[in-house]
Amino acid sequence: MQELTLSPDRFFDPDPAQRQVARQLYAQVASLPILSPHGHVDPRLFADEQASLGTPSDLFIIPDHYVYRMLYSQGIPLESLGVPRLDGGAVEQDHRKIWQVFADNFHLFRGTPTGAWLTHEFYEVFGVRQRLGTETAQSIYDQIAAQLSQPEFRPRALFERFNIQVLCTTDPAASRLEHHQAIRASGWKGDIRPTFRPDALVNLLTPGWKRNIQELSNVSGIAIHSYPQFIRALERQRYFFKQMGAVATDHAAPTPYTTFLSLSEVGTIFQHALQGKVTPDEATRFGGHMLVEMARMSVEDGLVMQLHPGSFRDHNARLYQRHGSDRGADIPTAVEFTNNLRPLLERFGDDTRLTLVLFTLDETTYGRELAPLAGHYPALKLGPPWWFFDSPNGMRRYFDQVIETAGLYNTVGFNDDTRAFLSIPARHDLWRRVSADWLAGLVVRHVLSEDEASEMAFEMAYGLTRRAYHLEDFSAPEQ
Amino acid sequence: MQELTLSPDRFFDPDPAQRQVARQLYAQVASLPILSPHGHVDPRLFADEQASLGTPSDLFIIPDHYVYRMLYSQGIPLESLGVPRLDGGAVEQDHRKIWQVFADNFHLFRGTPTGAWLTHEFYEVFGVRQRLGTETAQSIYDQIAAQLSQPEFRPRALFERFNIQVLCTTDPAASRLEHHQAIRASGWKGDIRPTFRPDALVNLLTPGWKRNIQELSNVSGIAIHSYPQFIRALERQRYFFKQMGAVATDHAAPTPYTTFLSLSEVGTIFQHALQGKVTPDEATRFGGHMLVEMARMSVEDGLVMQLHPGSFRDHNARLYQRHGSDRGADIPTAVEFTNNLRPLLERFGDDTRLTLVLFTLDETTYGRELAPLAGHYPALKLGPPWWFFDSPNGMRRYFDQVIETAGLYNTVGFNDDTRAFLSIPARHDLWRRVSADWLAGLVVRHVLSEDEASEMAFEMAYGLTRRAYHLEDFSAPEQ
Amino acid sequence: MQELTLSPDRFFDPDPAQRQVARQLYAQVASLPILSPHGHVDPRLFADEQASLGTPSDLFIIPDHYVYRMLYSQGIPLESLGVPRLDGGAVEQDHRKIWQVFADNFHLFRGTPTGAWLTHEFYEVFGVRQRLGTETAQSIYDQIAAQLSQPEFRPRALFERFNIQVLCTTDPAASRLEHHQAIRASGWKGDIRPTFRPDALVNLLTPGWKRNIQELSNVSGIAIHSYPQFIRALERQRYFFKQMGAVATDHAAPTPYTTFLSLSEVGTIFQHALQGKVTPDEATRFGGHMLVEMARMSVEDGLVMQLHPGSFRDHNARLYQRHGSDRGADIPTAVEFTNNLRPLLERFGDDTRLTLVLFTLDETTYGRELAPLAGHYPALKLGPPWWFFDSPNGMRRYFDQVIETAGLYNTVGFNDDTRAFLSIPARHDLWRRVSADWLAGLVVRHVLSEDEASEMAFEMAYGLTRRAYHLEDFSAPEQ
Repeated sequence: MQELTLSPDRFFDPDPAQRQVARQLYAQVASLPILSPHGHVDPRLFADEQASLGTPSDLFIIPDHYVYRMLYSQGIPLESLGVPRLDGGAVEQDHRKIWQVFADNFHLFRGTPTGAWLTHEFYEVFGVRQRLGTETAQSIYDQIAAQLSQPEFRPRALFERFNIQVLCTTDPAASRLEHHQAIRASGWKGDIRPTFRPDALVNLLTPGWKRNIQELSNVSGIAIHSYPQFIRALERQRYFFKQMGAVATDHAAPTPYTTFLSLSEVGTIFQHALQGKVTPDEATRFGGHMLVEMARMSVEDGLVMQLHPGSFRDHNARLYQRHGSDRGADIPTAVEFTNNLRPLLERFGDDTRLTLVLFTLDETTYGRELAPLAGHYPALKLGPPWWFFDSPNGMRRYFDQVIETAGLYNTVGFNDDTRAFLSIPARHDLWRRVSADWLAGLVVRHVLSEDEASEMAFEMAYGLTRRAYHLEDFSAPEQ
Repeated sequence: MQELTLSPDRFFDPDPAQRQVARQLYAQVASLPILSPHGHVDPRLFADEQASLGTPSDLFIIPDHYVYRMLYSQGIPLESLGVPRLDGGAVEQDHRKIWQVFADNFHLFRGTPTGAWLTHEFYEVFGVRQRLGTETAQSIYDQIAAQLSQPEFRPRALFERFNIQVLCTTDPAASRLEHHQAIRASGWKGDIRPTFRPDALVNLLTPGWKRNIQELSNVSGIAIHSYPQFIRALERQRYFFKQMGAVATDHAAPTPYTTFLSLSEVGTIFQHALQGKVTPDEATRFGGHMLVEMARMSVEDGLVMQLHPGSFRDHNARLYQRHGSDRGADIPTAVEFTNNLRPLLERFGDDTRLTLVLFTLDETTYGRELAPLAGHYPALKLGPPWWFFDSPNGMRRYFDQVIETAGLYNTVGFNDDTRAFLSIPARHDLWRRVSADWLAGLVVRHVLSEDEASEMAFEMAYGLTRRAYHLEDFSAPEQ
Repeated sequence: MQELTLSPDRFFDPDPAQRQVARQLYAQVASLPILSPHGHVDPRLFADEQASLGTPSDLFIIPDHYVYRMLYSQGIPLESLGVPRLDGGAVEQDHRKIWQVFADNFHLFRGTPTGAWLTHEFYEVFGVRQRLGTETAQSIYDQIAAQLSQPEFRPRALFERFNIQVLCTTDPAASRLEHHQAIRASGWKGDIRPTFRPDALVNLLTPGWKRNIQELSNVSGIAIHSYPQFIRALERQRYFFKQMGAVATDHAAPTPYTTFLSLSEVGTIFQHALQGKVTPDEATRFGGHMLVEMARMSVEDGLVMQLHPGSFRDHNARLYQRHGSDRGADIPTAVEFTNNLRPLLERFGDDTRLTLVLFTLDETTYGRELAPLAGHYPALKLGPPWWFFDSPNGMRRYFDQVIETAGLYNTVGFNDDTRAFLSIPARHDLWRRVSADWLAGLVVRHVLSEDEASEMAFEMAYGLTRRAYHLEDFSAPEQ
């Protein structure tokens, strides 16, 4: 039975001098509290004090498209992994069998960030000391299952154990935020904040758009029959989210296309949408216009605006029909920022009241477009490497391509962007390690002094995020 | 006279810890047999037991566009290198003079993979121990020429010396595979297999397309006057290739555009082509449709489908008119896979009977498109770094950008893609070294354990290729 | 007060073996004379023997968009940095206050090439030994100001101290080169050469284009009422520039689009421009045509042609209206060379009399397009990493992506491309260090022998530039 180990030097360069500096820098930031300003954890987990994380398969496999897409890519049907079908068709119900398939194929994750996070979670959270594989599958299942039934493994307890200072969820703009309300009402002190995500309202081609508008009408108390009413309802919901602790909004879009339409044109498009006869081109123009409107609202209410463009969602139509969205079949496309963002930046790029955080799945834009843009416009900041690039190499490429041009101080630190609650400490730890190692590389090349690197390591792990997302009301930990 | 050396540690990282692990991993795979599932070696070399490789200039310069393009880029006319002219115009006939020009300019290859392969071939195959240069040119010529006249340097002998287990050639779809037949008839045991390449038939704008269709009619015995007859003839030829040992098909295309046309539309386009009045747009649509048809045939007959898009062939029109195709003037262009491949993937992406291996000359697609696609669709695998990127840095970028997202097991190992038979061992050795070093880097960063890296090194050198190309009927070497 | 240090090992890899080789290679090239074949230093600095560099803020901040864009990106108004307004509005006049803002924010430059250059300049040119920051701002200001008032810190004296052998400026094609004439007349021996930049004449949409044509008429003595007269005037000015020592021309363009128009079409477009009614599409076609014409002229007169495409100039319209061009708001865009350059290359790509040096801000083109193009066409060479990529990582990516395919000998060494005269030695030193370190990496990986690396280090620091720009009339320094 092979032993599972977790080296204290993992992800550090092998050069002894660099590794020594990396260790020191990492030691300074390893136990800083976690700020998680952007992610997709279900707030329900914290609304109910008794909430449980379920079985090991519930926790690690069934809801995590990072995990099952890799198994699927090797020909393993999602049904055998317990992923529900929209038509209610049969899927594997035996969680031990699901776990066994996962364990039998755990080698697929070698060298992947998912593999690194899982190993961290097994080792650190559950104390597993065997490597997962065909033989050890069931005994590890037992070990994890036993712990999951204990009160110390309820979400609130883990939230505290993980030393999370703030956790921002992502919530539909028309939400009543019931779970956030329940958390507040419960008296529990964990700081869980909503994030305003209006995609399903501003993308006129969203399936069920009319129903979403109806919900927005209901929750905002504004009957929406026109574009100005739509805007007013959005503003009111932003206010509500902000009252509930929100610090940011979140926007997905196929491209970062922005435009500013006349009130007449945008009103007409909105009417077409209400009448169910909007064209794809109209929807594109409307979406581009709404990004500018959202920037305008952020200038006014101070919510940080986050933009994540360039993912072709639900690329596999067959899978989408069978299992729905977010099934590991979102595929990036090339993205253009320089021309697309200009209409928005013409209006608000110089406005220091706006913080627009840009993310990309097209790494070619790091050095070519994003770093020069963020290195000029006061309103722009760069988010951390996103999704597939939340990985050691992804982070290194980001640092190497962004910082020389944008400087560190036009970036916003890390976010975990995850729905896998248990992976949060693993992901932040990975970021802190790779950051420390990257800084150490600059120290041993005499580009930075050790005290500069030390300040920067703190910024990367904590300070940049705190300032960018206006979380300064927290007392900062000592450096 | 400077000594030529070939360090046992070449291409390994200088860090002593990493190098030590790299050495161990490399030692485990260095002498594994070579699987060459994709290349362009002329089967004629093996059809005739007495075939000779010619003079040193015949072997290393005149047919190798990797070599003469670099000399050409510095103003050396192809005529002075003996490269034939289409008009039969005079070119240098004195192979010693050609060799001297090459030697005088050998410094141009410093730091290039061509330089590394040539050095390997000189040292390992011919025992050369002087560095090639102006002074040593003629004595090295003598040394190589003397050996080339020996029976041990005939192609079949070298095939055995090189420990090549399977060598796949690339053959026009309308070929009768006479040389492969001759090899079989000869009783020689070298395993040389054809690969089905239908480009000249499915690209309706190919010069001589009508003649190619006529050849396909002749060889298949199916008179082709309609699209369904065309399809039937292709299927029959695929069957014939498979009978002759083929495991794969190969497809070049300007882009990976795919589409699925109605039988009526595709039939009309085909008639236009027969009438010599097809438009470029029709040809594009036909080509995109035929990729889907070829995937359908692969589902049915099990031939692995290989797609190499994105090269602007014969970019230099003047040179093309004088010397023809494949003269080192093929220049890559940006490529888009996410949207282009979708029509094919909608039909067959989930089908585990299909293996579609993708190659690219646009490295930006590694992390952005190819790895996410291969990390989801069961039918997709990623080919090794191609052409210009069959190099130490090309391999490192490939590993660093692909594996974190796609995992190792959605890749297919190495292929040499070469028409230079002698460079096969050099190229595989380079891949095995760079693979070992890359894995060693993960070991010393504690991302992989040594036993995991050891298994992966075997997969990269041998196992992945064997499985992907269905070569499992070979007895695998011991690990 | 923290000490400012400048390690002799800066920018070298930490691996002891690699560093040792890097040191040796760097030592061989560190004190070679500087060839600066492309830059934007104002020739006025050298025309007047008494010219002064002004205050520390005049020197380091007010004219340098590399510096103030970073401050601006953090919300510091350009007015507070003394950057003039076009409307004559008030800007900070107190250079000590400007300096203090700069010093207070000097941490923004950590890890950037601007930070590295500034540190080099402070330390090496002015002997500063304290780190710049809030506390040390004014004493460092004093120290630099005192020196700037000395004769040894006049531009001509520094030119000699910096060991600059040739400095090429960039000059409007319609210039009378008064400052260059004054330098010649003065008898001073510094070799300052003009470069012919026709952008404002060939880009028909340039504001003030008619006025520019009038100037060209005046200076050339050719009344320009037609396209042939325009061409003749340009040729005459090229001749004049060449008489004044020019070795090159310089061309910016939004894209590298080239085309060759009929005389009738190009004549018509030119008339439209004279009549003030040219369309954007006509202007694009004219610009593409003029690149081919300029290549034709270079074939005839031997001036090296330099092409810098892909920057979206003055992206921030608001800032442009307030402060004008070149304010740190130029943002790159994706660029395509393979198709765009073909019309030019069809005519002149094989002509060894042409040297066309290509630059890019889109690093994806290095390996995909530029290296394959330069590795084939005799007329093409690759310029060094440009602008944002004139940095340690930018250089490493350039070497790693270009050299394997194009070879070293299809590149042209370094240029500093700077208007900041004092940064010239810092930039060349950085290039020489990173070059030496990159070569050392190949030596310790046994890809190059030490003597090969030594020759290549000399080429990168000096030899390639000397040959590419036809500066062979200088006596080369001993290697």
